[in-house]
Amino acid sequence: MSAAKLFGVGVGPGDPELLTLKAMRALGAADVIAHFAKAGHASHSRSIVARHLRAGVAELPLYYPITTELPACSDGYRDTLRDFYDRAAAEIAAQLDAGRTVAVICEGDPLFYGSYMHVHARLAPRYPAEIVAGVTGMSGCWSAAAMPIAQGDDVFTVLPATLPEGELVRRLAEADAAVVMKVGRHLAKLRRALQTSGRLPRAIYVERGTMAEEKMIPLSAKLDDEAPYFAVVLVPGWEERP
Amino acid sequence: MSAAKLFGVGVGPGDPELLTLKAMRALGAADVIAHFAKAGHASHSRSIVARHLRAGVAELPLYYPITTELPACSDGYRDTLRDFYDRAAAEIAAQLDAGRTVAVICEGDPLFYGSYMHVHARLAPRYPAEIVAGVTGMSGCWSAAAMPIAQGDDVFTVLPATLPEGELVRRLAEADAAVVMKVGRHLAKLRRALQTSGRLPRAIYVERGTMAEEKMIPLSAKLDDEAPYFAVVLVPGWEERP
Repeated sequence: MSAAKLFGVGVGPGDPELLTLKAMRALGAADVIAHFAKAGHASHSRSIVARHLRAGVAELPLYYPITTELPACSDGYRDTLRDFYDRAAAEIAAQLDAGRTVAVICEGDPLFYGSYMHVHARLAPRYPAEIVAGVTGMSGCWSAAAMPIAQGDDVFTVLPATLPEGELVRRLAEADAAVVMKVGRHLAKLRRALQTSGRLPRAIYVERGTMAEEKMIPLSAKLDDEAPYFAVVLVPGWEERP
Repeated sequence: MSAAKLFGVGVGPGDPELLTLKAMRALGAADVIAHFAKAGHASHSRSIVARHLRAGVAELPLYYPITTELPACSDGYRDTLRDFYDRAAAEIAAQLDAGRTVAVICEGDPLFYGSYMHVHARLAPRYPAEIVAGVTGMSGCWSAAAMPIAQGDDVFTVLPATLPEGELVRRLAEADAAVVMKVGRHLAKLRRALQTSGRLPRAIYVERGTMAEEKMIPLSAKLDDEAPYFAVVLVPGWEERP
C-alpha cells in the first residue's frame, strides 16, 4: 500500500481569494492536480487556482465527452457519462497506484452538484480520500449581490431550471427562498414561472458571481431572455424580519 | 465621510482551516472584530478565528438577549430581537463613525441563516459594506461525512426541524436531497417524518461537522433522540448516478 491520497478540493465560486486555507494546503501537498473541463476548453477550476499552483506540478485534465447530440434523459447519454467517469477514475487510480497524491479541484463545493462525486464514489472504497469543503457558487452569487437569502425558519430550495414550468411554479410558491440553477435557455420559462408564483419582483439574475465579468440585475429589469448555462436566479426569503 | 468599511465575514463551519484567503485579509484589515454570542458564553465564530486575530485587536461582542421565556412566534420575542439588532447596529455604527473598519465574523456564510444579515440590512444603506462568502455549516457536514448530497437535476431543500410533522413528511418526500437544520429537541418528530417519507434508511445525523468534537452516525443506528440545537440531518439525493 502506498501513502497516496485522493483529495476532492472545493475551490469556490470563482474569486481566487475565496479559496480556503485547507484547499491551499491540499494544493501544496498534491503531486498531481486533476481538473474537469469541456473538450477543447480550459478548465474553469484550474483558472481559479492558477496563481496558487506550484511551478511544474503535474496536471491531469479530464475532458468531458461531447454529448450535445444526445438527449440528456437517453440511455446513450447515461452510458457515455458512465464510461467517461469510469475512465476518469481509472486515470486517477493509476496515479494513486504509482504512490502519487492527487487533488481533484472542483468549482464550488465538491459534493454539491459537482463532477468530483462521481470519481469519489468509484475510488473512495479503495483509496484514502478527503473532501475539502468549498464556498458554493450560489453563496458567491448572493454575497456578490449583498442579498440576504434565508433566515430563521425559512425553507430554502435549489431548483434546476430544467424542470417543467408547472413544477417550477409549484415549487417556487412553496419555498420561502430559492436559487434556480442552470438557467441557460430556460430563462423565458423561468420568468413566466416566477411571475405566476408571485416571486418575480424580488428575483435577481446573476452571471459569473464573484468573477471579473460578474453581471447582476433584477430579473424584472432584464430585457432579454439570453443567459449562459451557469447563470443563476436568486429568490430571497426573509420577508418577515425582526 | 470616513473611509471606514463594514465587512460581513463568513468564517466557515468550524475548522479554522476552512477560512478563505479573503476572510483572512478582511480580519487583517479590520480595526474592530465584532461577533455574536449567547449571553454568558464565548462566541463560537470568535473561537474559529482565534488563532488568526492580531494581538490586541479591538473586539466588539454582541450578546443575544435571553429569550427562552418568550414563545418564538410572539410579539415579545420579535420586539426583543428587533431591539437587540437595533442596538447591535448602533454599536457598530459608532465604530464606523469613528473611522474604524469593522469585521463582523459569522459562522458559515454571512447571508445564509446568519445574524449578520440583520445588521447588514440596517447599516448597508449608510456605510460601504462588503460580504465575504463562507463555507456553510451544511457543506462542512456533508464533506466531513464524505457524502455526495446532490447532483444533476436534483431538487435540494433545507428544512428547519421546527416544521410540523406533516409538513416535514410532505417536503422530505418531494425533495431529492435535503438537509434538516436546528434538530435539537425535534429529533423524535423528525425521525418519524423520515420514516413516513421513506427517507430514514439513508439519513445521516451530524453534530459539530469539521470540528474536533465531530460526531456522525446513520440516524437509523442512533439509539436515542438527544441532539443539540445545531445538529443536522443529511438526506442525500443522487440515487440515479451515471
